[in-house]
Parts: sequence; C-alpha cells; structure tokens
Amino acid sequence: MTAVSIRVRYAETDQMGIAHHAEYFAWFEVGRTELLRAHGLTYRDLEKRGVHFPVVGTEARFLRPAFYDDVLEVRTEVAGLSGARITFAYEIYRDGTGPIATARTEHAAVDTEGRPHRLPADVRARLG
Amino acid sequence: MTAVSIRVRYAETDQMGIAHHAEYFAWFEVGRTELLRAHGLTYRDLEKRGVHFPVVGTEARFLRPAFYDDVLEVRTEVAGLSGARITFAYEIYRDGTGPIATARTEHAAVDTEGRPHRLPADVRARLG
Amino acid sequence: MTAVSIRVRYAETDQMGIAHHAEYFAWFEVGRTELLRAHGLTYRDLEKRGVHFPVVGTEARFLRPAFYDDVLEVRTEVAGLSGARITFAYEIYRDGTGPIATARTEHAAVDTEGRPHRLPADVRARLG
Amino acid sequence: MTAVSIRVRYAETDQMGIAHHAEYFAWFEVGRTELLRAHGLTYRDLEKRGVHFPVVGTEARFLRPAFYDDVLEVRTEVAGLSGARITFAYEIYRDGTGPIATARTEHAAVDTEGRPHRLPADVRARLG
Repeated sequence: MTAVSIRVRYAETDQMGIAHHAEYFAWFEVGRTELLRAHGLTYRDLEKRGVHFPVVGTEARFLRPAFYDDVLEVRTEVAGLSGARITFAYEIYRDGTGPIATARTEHAAVDTEGRPHRLPADVRARLG
Repeated sequence: MTAVSIRVRYAETDQMGIAHHAEYFAWFEVGRTELLRAHGLTYRDLEKRGVHFPVVGTEARFLRPAFYDDVLEVRTEVAGLSGARITFAYEIYRDGTGPIATARTEHAAVDTEGRPHRLPADVRARLG
Repeated sequence: MTAVSIRVRYAETDQMGIAHHAEYFAWFEVGRTELLRAHGLTYRDLEKRGVHFPVVGTEARFLRPAFYDDVLEVRTEVAGLSGARITFAYEIYRDGTGPIATARTEHAAVDTEGRPHRLPADVRARLG
Repeated sequence: MTAVSIRVRYAETDQMGIAHHAEYFAWFEVGRTELLRAHGLTYRDLEKRGVHFPVVGTEARFLRPAFYDDVLEVRTEVAGLSGARITFAYEIYRDGTGPIATARTEHAAVDTEGRPHRLPADVRARLG
C-alpha cells in the first residue's frame, strides 16, 4: 500500500460546499502515480515505452464529504494483475478515522494505438 | 429516458488523446439535470428548496474512447427511487452504434446541512 | 463573430455558488472551436495536419458571476493574425444584457514538436 | 513571497501532451491559499467570517509548457491591496530556471451575498 497526501483545492469544490465527486478520480490517479513510483516505475516512462493504462471501469463509494483545505491521505494498492489488465484499489482518509471514500479502477494495458498490449515482464515483476 | 447531446471539449482530453474518464461524471451530471428538466423539475430549484442529491456511489464502464470534437448522446433514466435515495443509469452513444460508456450513480437526498431528507412527494411523483 | 451557447454545469460551480473562473477558459476554447468551424476549419483537422495553437497568454475580466444552469452565449472573433500568432477575443452574454465576461487569448502556431510553425495559407485566408 | 510545490497530474494534461492552461488557475489558487496561511490566515476561515475573494480579472503568460509528473514551484505574492481589492502575482518555476509562467489575479472582497465588502483590518494588517 502506498499513501500520498493531497490538500483539497478550492477549484475542486462545488456549490454544495464539498469536493465534487469527479475530482476524486484525479486524486486516485495521483495515488496510482505514486504507487508506481514507490515500486520503481514511473507512469511517465511507461508511456514513453508505449504502455498506457486507460481506465476501463470503476466503482466508488463516497462515504463522507471532503471539504476545501482538508488534508486527505490517498492509500492505493494493486488489487489485481493479469496479462493485460491491472486493478487498483483506493481508500481516502482524513484524520485517521474510517475512510471517507473507497474505490477501484480497472485498467487495460494498451499500446500507443490503443491496442491491447501485454504488461511488460518488469512491470509485472515489480507490481505482482 | 432523456437524451442530451454534448460535444467533447479540448480541455476534457488528456495526453492519451482521449477524453479523460473523470470528465464523464460531469457529462452524467448534465444528463440528470436534463432528465429532471424533462420531468418538470430543475435541480436548481430543488436546491433552493433545500433538497440536494450528493453522489454516494457510482460504477462506470468505459467501453470505447471518446475524442475531442465528438458529438455524444448521453441517455439518462431513473433506475431506482426509494425514500431518500435515487439512482440514475446512463449510456453514452456516438453515431448510433453500441454505447461507448455505461454508468450508474446513486444519490442520497439530504438537506442543506447534509442530513438525510426524504424526497419531496412531488419529486417522487414526477420521477416514479 | 461566432456565437455558441453553453449551459453552466454543476461540476463547474465552486463553493462560492458561482461558476469557477478557470472553467471560463474551457468555454473560450469551445468558442474558438466553433469559430474555426464557422470558417470551414476544424481544430481537430488542423492538429492532424500538425498545426497546434497552444495558449501563450490571456487576459480576462469577470464582470458578473455565472450560475449553475445559466444559459450563456460565448461570442468569439479573431482579434489578430500574424505569421505564427493568432489572437481571439471573447464576450460572454446572459439574457442579452451587457457581457458578464470578456477575454482575449493569444496563441502561437507550433508543430507537433512544439516548434514555431507558420500558419498555413488556407488558415490565414479563411480567418484573415 | 510564498512558495508551494505541486506535481502536474495526469488529469491536468490535454492531447497536446502538456498541462492545459486552465489548470494553472487552480495552481494559482493553491498559491494564494498558501500565501494566506503563511501570513496567519486561512481562506477557509475568511469565508466563514463572510469574506470572499472572487476573481474579477486575470492576466497570464505561458512561457514554456509543463508536463505530466513535473514538480513545479508556485511563487505567490501580494501585488496590490486597497479598500476592497486585492491583487496577487504568481511565477511558476521548474528546476530553478526562469519562470515557465507568470500571472496576476485581481480580486474583489465581497460578502456572502456578493456585495462589496471592505477587507477586515486584520487581513489588511497581515497582508499589507
């Protein structure tokens, strides 16, 4: 599990006075960027090698709202790994209490033209 | 079912050259805004009456990418309605072929302070 | 001048209860996409030809707020055109009263590697 | 001058392969949030006291692109302060070389109803 801290931006709030649910997906993306880095990979380099991980599915639960200027912890882990698929799981915490959100994102590994592409062996070895 | 057309904005793309998955949640929101309007309600007025529908859960499948300047059709329907919960289902189409994305969003009805709030009778009658 | 109508999305609001100023830049981008189309060009095709228009400067005035579900008219025109530069000017209207926002964006024409690139003759002829 | 570090998110890129210019305005907002904090204020508390700083104007220059996963430094200072107006100036740096972007944002101080509101004395004292 890799943890990264983010602070809720004003631009991420909506007129309900809370962080808009769509913004969480950018935070999850920060979470998986840092998980890869913690495993000796960068998604920037993976893309340069022609490996892309578009999101093909997601599910998320928003248990309690997040507010402007809150400091949140995004915890990310690999929840599944197969030939050309990878699934990440996320929990977002504030103040050590139970999670305020949980989610999973499922990704297909594709090449630069969007065709399915087997995950490189070194990526599988580092994340497996 | 209510259909609304949107055109993919440049700002909605990412460096993979496709619309970023987080943007779809703004499109789904446009879909439910228009569904409510088609049933004689506006979410703007509901909020003025103190009724808010924060998203408490979602699941989405991204089946094929959407590209800048694509014209998409967002089809929205009420998939579930109970005392203080409402679920919407979405399909996004391009060019009449099968959907490029499907999703559901589940909402709690809450008051301005975020407390659970039974859906007003007129809302239930119009959407039920 | 080319006019295009947009409706303020819920995701575009912030906790001040108004459309967030950063969102206007996506609307201006919609404005110039439609201006190009009205002149027989599409920015999608320009990019396929290797011509890109990154924003190198902007100035904007936000005169009155825009609210969720407002229908706005974005009016765009070419304000300047030189060898490898193009400037667009914008006004946003609601309800026919004076503009609620005005702006300019200045763009460099660059190739796919980001190097300065003279505007193609047909683009200059159509926009000049 | 207050400096804060941000890392470019994947969601902030566009299909030109660079951070989209609209995203910089969220970064500038992070910059002024941190400037206020460094001066013993939080914008969250200011809003609770009924003081809001909507953006009424901006100008920005984008000198060099920013890329996904870049670590940037946003430097913010108060460039002007009068009865009910405040102007911030920004520079964004990467790697210690010259700035990649510069900007100013001008804000009106307003109350919760959007009416002009003189800046509280303590705010003026801390920022002046």
